[in-house]
Order: sequence, then C-alpha cells, then structure tokens
Amino acid sequence: MVLSLTNTAPDFEAQFKALLSGKREVSEDVDQIVRDILEDVRARGDEAVLEYTERFDRLQAASMAELKVTSAEIEAAVREVPAQTLDALQLAHDRIYAHHSRQVPKDDRYTDPIGVELGSLWTPVEAVGIYVPGGSASYPSSVLMNAVPAKVAGVERIVMVVPSPDGVLNPLVLAAAKVAGVSEIYRIGGAQAVAALAYGTGTIAPVAKIVGPGNAFVAAAKRRVFGTVGIDMIAGPSEVLIIADEGNNADWLAADLLAQAEHDTAAQSILITTSSELADQVEAAVESQLKMLPREEVARASWQDFGAIILVNSLDEAMPLSNRIAPEHLELAVADPEALLKKVRNAGAVFMGHHTPEAIGDYIGGSNHVLPTARSARFSSGLSVLEFVKRTSILKCNSDNLRALGPAAIALGEAEGLSAHARSVSIRLNI
Amino acid sequence: MVLSLTNTAPDFEAQFKALLSGKREVSEDVDQIVRDILEDVRARGDEAVLEYTERFDRLQAASMAELKVTSAEIEAAVREVPAQTLDALQLAHDRIYAHHSRQVPKDDRYTDPIGVELGSLWTPVEAVGIYVPGGSASYPSSVLMNAVPAKVAGVERIVMVVPSPDGVLNPLVLAAAKVAGVSEIYRIGGAQAVAALAYGTGTIAPVAKIVGPGNAFVAAAKRRVFGTVGIDMIAGPSEVLIIADEGNNADWLAADLLAQAEHDTAAQSILITTSSELADQVEAAVESQLKMLPREEVARASWQDFGAIILVNSLDEAMPLSNRIAPEHLELAVADPEALLKKVRNAGAVFMGHHTPEAIGDYIGGSNHVLPTARSARFSSGLSVLEFVKRTSILKCNSDNLRALGPAAIALGEAEGLSAHARSVSIRLNI
Repeated sequence: MVLSLTNTAPDFEAQFKALLSGKREVSEDVDQIVRDILEDVRARGDEAVLEYTERFDRLQAASMAELKVTSAEIEAAVREVPAQTLDALQLAHDRIYAHHSRQVPKDDRYTDPIGVELGSLWTPVEAVGIYVPGGSASYPSSVLMNAVPAKVAGVERIVMVVPSPDGVLNPLVLAAAKVAGVSEIYRIGGAQAVAALAYGTGTIAPVAKIVGPGNAFVAAAKRRVFGTVGIDMIAGPSEVLIIADEGNNADWLAADLLAQAEHDTAAQSILITTSSELADQVEAAVESQLKMLPREEVARASWQDFGAIILVNSLDEAMPLSNRIAPEHLELAVADPEALLKKVRNAGAVFMGHHTPEAIGDYIGGSNHVLPTARSARFSSGLSVLEFVKRTSILKCNSDNLRALGPAAIALGEAEGLSAHARSVSIRLNI
Repeated sequence: MVLSLTNTAPDFEAQFKALLSGKREVSEDVDQIVRDILEDVRARGDEAVLEYTERFDRLQAASMAELKVTSAEIEAAVREVPAQTLDALQLAHDRIYAHHSRQVPKDDRYTDPIGVELGSLWTPVEAVGIYVPGGSASYPSSVLMNAVPAKVAGVERIVMVVPSPDGVLNPLVLAAAKVAGVSEIYRIGGAQAVAALAYGTGTIAPVAKIVGPGNAFVAAAKRRVFGTVGIDMIAGPSEVLIIADEGNNADWLAADLLAQAEHDTAAQSILITTSSELADQVEAAVESQLKMLPREEVARASWQDFGAIILVNSLDEAMPLSNRIAPEHLELAVADPEALLKKVRNAGAVFMGHHTPEAIGDYIGGSNHVLPTARSARFSSGLSVLEFVKRTSILKCNSDNLRALGPAAIALGEAEGLSAHARSVSIRLNI
C-alpha cells in the first residue's frame, strides 16, 4: 500500500509536513576516511592514487600513465557500441548542445548617465573535472549532461575520471566522452580521483571545478575540496511529482512513476490528482507494471517507502503543495499545462502535457538532467552553461566622474572606520 | 620589508608558487560547537536562540518578539545618521540597483525544428536571510550589496539578522536596511541566527537561502545548513592586485594597497609593475602613509606578512601571473587598460585606469563588492541577481515529436539498464 492523502482530511497538514521532511538518505559517515585519502594524495600524488586504485578497484598499474585511457581504447570501445545506440548518443549530444547554446551569457559593457563605464564580462572556467561513477550507475547520458555544457561554455580542458572496478569500464561511457569532446580520461575513482583533480598530481594537472555524481565518498570529497576548486551541487536521490487531472491514461502515469522509482530505493514518486478514480487506477497500474520490471525490487521499495498519492479538490489546490515539495521533476499531465505552469515557483524541470514523459528529459529532450533534488529547487537550478563560466565586473571612472562620486565614497569609508579606503579616493581629488 | 620578486630571477617560479599557496587564514575548529548549536535551535527554536543570545551577546530578552527590531527603532536610527552619510547611502543604493537591474536573466521559450517546445523560466527565491556581522565589521555597505540584488531579483521576504553585543547596534546598518527595503530585522547573530533562518523558529519563518559574511562560527554554520537552504560563497580575507606601468602616481597606488591592507591582518596587497623606480617609490610611499592611518597596525601587519611587489619586463608578462593569482580585485593602472583587459581570464572585478581606486567599487560604483577571494575567481563570480533566482527547464512534446525522439530515448534507457525509463516512452508509442 502506498501512502494516500486527501487535502481535506483534518490531519493533512501534519501528514504533508512529514512527507516533506522525511529523510530518504542514510548518510554514511565516511568523512574521516575521505580526509585521510585527500591529504595522502595531496602529499604523495600519483603514487597514492595508484595505491588506492589497487586497494579499492582491485586494479594494478605500474604508473598513472597506464591508467590514462588511450585513444585506441576509446576507438575500440566505440566499435563495441551498437550503431543504433551510437546514433542515439549523437542525437542526444546534438540536442543538448543546441539547447545549452542558448544559455551562454552575454557580456555587458555600458556607460552610465554620468560617464562611468561599467560592465560584466564572462569567461569560461579554464579546466573542469567530470566524475563518472563506475559499475551499474555508469551512465553515458550523465557524461553528455556534464560535459556538453562545459564544452558550450568554452572550457578548454575537460578531464573525466571513471573508476573501473576489476578493470571493467562501460564502453558506452567512453563513447559518450568521445562524442562530447572530453580531453583526457583516467580510470580512477573515489576520493582519490577527486583529490587528483583538485590538487593535481605529477601526471594530472589540477582543474578549477569538479562536477558529476558519485557515492558517499565522492560527495564527501567534493565537499572537502570545495574552495580549492568549485563543485556542482551534491545530488540526492531522484524524485518526480506528477500533477494529473481526470483526463489521463493511468498506465502512462504509472510508467512515469516507476521510471523514477527504478533509479534507487530512496527515489520518490508522488502523484497529485483531482480524480479519486484515476488515483485508484494508477495505484493498480503501478502494481501490475511493477511485476514486469527487471528492477522490480528497487522500484517496489521506493514506491512503498516513499511514494504517495495525494487527492485534491482542484488543480489550484495542487500548485501550493507542488511549490512546497519543490520537485526535481514536475509532470503537468493536465489538459491545460500552460495555465498551471504560470503558478510554478519551485521546480527543477517541468514536463508539459501527456506526451512528455520525464525520461525524454533524461536523454534526448535537450535540457539538462542534472537537477536540484531534496527540495533544493527552492534555491537552486539545474546544471547549465552558467556553472562553467564566471563573471568579472568592470568599473572605469575618469577624473570628472570620480570627482562626482568621490565624496559619497569618502563619507561611507569614514562612516565605516576605513580611513585608508576614504584616503585612496581623496588623494586623487586633492581633498 | 615587503616581499620583492623579479620574474627573471631563477627562483621566481618557486617563490611565486609559495605566494599563491600561502595560507592567510587560521581556520578555527568550531565545527563541533556549531553542530550542537544548530541541533539545539532546530529542536527548541526561539527558546534556544534566546539562551545563546544571552550567553554570547550578553543580551537578555523575554521573547524573540523583543529581539525583532521595530520600525520605531529603525526610524530612530535613521535620525541618528548624518544627512551627508544618509545621502551617500541612498546614492550607493540607487547606483547598485541600476547596475544589478541589468543582470536579471530573461525567460526563454522556443520551439525547435521538429516542434518540441523548450524553455528556461526564472523565478525569484521566495525568502532570503542576510547575515550582518556585529561590532566593528558591521558595514552598511555590505547590507546594500547583499540586499539590493535580492530586491532586484524580486525576492518577497528579506530577513536580516545582526548581533548586538551588549545591546549595541550600528545605526548605519539599520539605515542601510531601510534604504534597501529589508522586510524583517532580528538582533541575533552567530550560529544560532543561521540556524533560526535555516530551520525557522516559532517567531521566524524559515528562508530558502542565506547570504552575507560572518566569523568562523557563522561560516561553519552556513556550511552545515547548506542543502537545507542555499548559501553564498564563504568569503576569505580580501585582496587586491595592482598592475602598473611607469606612468603612475606612487602615492595613489600606495593608498590603494593600504585600503586593502587595512581590512584585516590577513588581507593581501600585491603590486606588479614594469618599473623598478615605481616599485621603490610605492614601497616608500606605503611606509610613509602607514604612519598616518588610524588602522596602521592592521595595515602594517597585512603588508609585511602578505604584501608583495613583483617586477616584470613587460605588461604582457604580468597577465599570466595575474590570471594565476585570480585576484578578487584587479586594478589596471596602466595607460591602456582596455588592451590588458582582453587578457584577463580570472578576476572578481577589474578597476580600469588611474581614476578608479578599488574603494569606489566597495561603495558607490554600482557593481557588487561581494567578490570571490582566495583564488576562487578561477571558478566563481561576485554576488549578483543570479544568486537570488533559479531556473526551471521546460519541455513539451506532442505525439508527433515524441514519436520522432522516442526510439533514441528507448535505446539509451535500455542501454543504461533502466527499462522503466524506456517503458514510459514506449507505452505512449504503443511499441
């Protein structure tokens, strides 16, 4: 039985709050181990990375050079990938590239009414590291979603790290890296790979920013190197909220809820609907589709532990709930999604109408699938070109407008007790 | 004697690397204390905040309502501020508002060649908390720099917290809050104030993002609540790099170096110049101006411990060094600053020519003075309207273009072992 709520029930607010504040992640306390690994790699470089790779990935190498993936290996991997999949990767790449090209911010230089020249200039981050998990969560689509925005931004050097436990590397991931134009690839992972990217080693030059998902060790390492390098957000388990009116195909909605649930036992799928009949149909459809899924066990655990169906009287009542949930993915499976979209305040990505299952956005829509989880859409956005550029402010006074603005700057400097600030202005005005 | 380097010296690279990697901050280990305070405020709300405020700020209050600053108190504070200073605050506000208004990102909705509708919609963060330090670092200019971009972004609720040790509150800070349009002000500080903003209490509704500078306790608290709310960057000590050719007034440059040095003993002022004569003149001018400064002791410590003068053969040689330093503030005190600007890759803000002392940007230029420190301009930007908005991606397929894109999504879903993803597409295509 999945959690079922009705927004007219007397205890609804309490139950909804519990749903909002429910912890879906067990945080592993790996911080001490990670700290030691980071310090060791910082001190001993390549040698330390080689040792940890042997210990954790059971992969022996005589030198870091051996852990660098060669172009011959990449070509061999590409040949292993079926043509249809390769075409799909290329189509995904091209659509992601086209969409993200619209996100490149424009420089702004202008002169204000008193003649002061101001501006904002954007430049790409010079070198970026992309972490790609190994094993079953080694997704080629994530390679594209992280690398393409960096490429569009103009990042010159994109370094990918991907662990190959027991030497196994997903050929699709190498194919995606090639399609995306990744510059260097190393088969290393864990905190040691994050350290190598952040601090650099004899073989690997340091990067300025590290992005990409990873396990608890990777997340802890990213938190710790933040400051030395930039990082993207720390992603939590995935989630979808579907808002549906009565005119829906219950099987389609059930499939969408399960597409989210199959990610992870901690994933969350929520349906808010105005139709109690649809609610019942979807619940039944989920049950029957679950039995067909290769990842039934994962999806079932997610749906039973964290899934929910919420019945509301009107779509208007659905939107405040949605904005409080601040879902990573929001499907507006309603007759008039544009009307509801106007009321969306907090959501990572919105999928409009009946023909936009969330999985289209995961792969091929063109928008990014790296999106804010765990209610962080209240204050953050999905990955974009903006994460790979930075802005420099420009200010240019001449002697005339310095004379116009100077006295106010001097007054504020003196008021703050910062006389040298005031003096750096007054000395130029001879006052 | 300040550190003097010449880029043709054989040991220059080693000395420059040491300058780059020098630690200027002593990190206080306050994390355990902060963790306990956060947990306590989360559990006991107002009551806990009142207790910590009494303990740390020696300020007794019977209820949180008493710690809320009333409009009568704000009006009284405004009356205490000299008219000239109030005018300066208003001018600063208006110029900051005008500059930041150009940063508001535009929504983007479009239809791609196969009819898929895509887009990016921007919405303001709903509620923002601004931390303002107490005591001597309680700067009205920082209130403007943090609050105005939020206001321009359309943030509805801006909550300011500012500790008042022994009941003392800087009237200028209240005046700046009024000028900026801050919604609520509480005289609380430290980790307890950060916790109150992040988790909410009986009196204070939670916010979605917290910005503003603070001491080690505040910084540790912000790091810990990150995820529950958004935070801005954790600011380090301030720094300036001046690149100067021979045509400079040494007294002006010395004043600018000292304006930075007076902030903090850990501040850093660096001069790179092509003229050994100017280098000597500036060094002498710094020495003689130091004696005139009320904050001589702070500025002298900063200059002696972290200041540097670097002699180079040409301005072209200066720029790669500047980009490696990635300074928070970069003054281009040269005849042709536009030519050098083209080579700037990493810098928080650039001050062009001889008539733009950095202090103009601190107060009145219009650009933001919250800028990336400690080489983080390699991957991050100064505070802007973008920190107070978030982007929602929009995707809308119809049955035709879902049919066009579907097979590629299905191929990638299956290739990643995510059958339910594939199924959510195929079920709509009857395949």
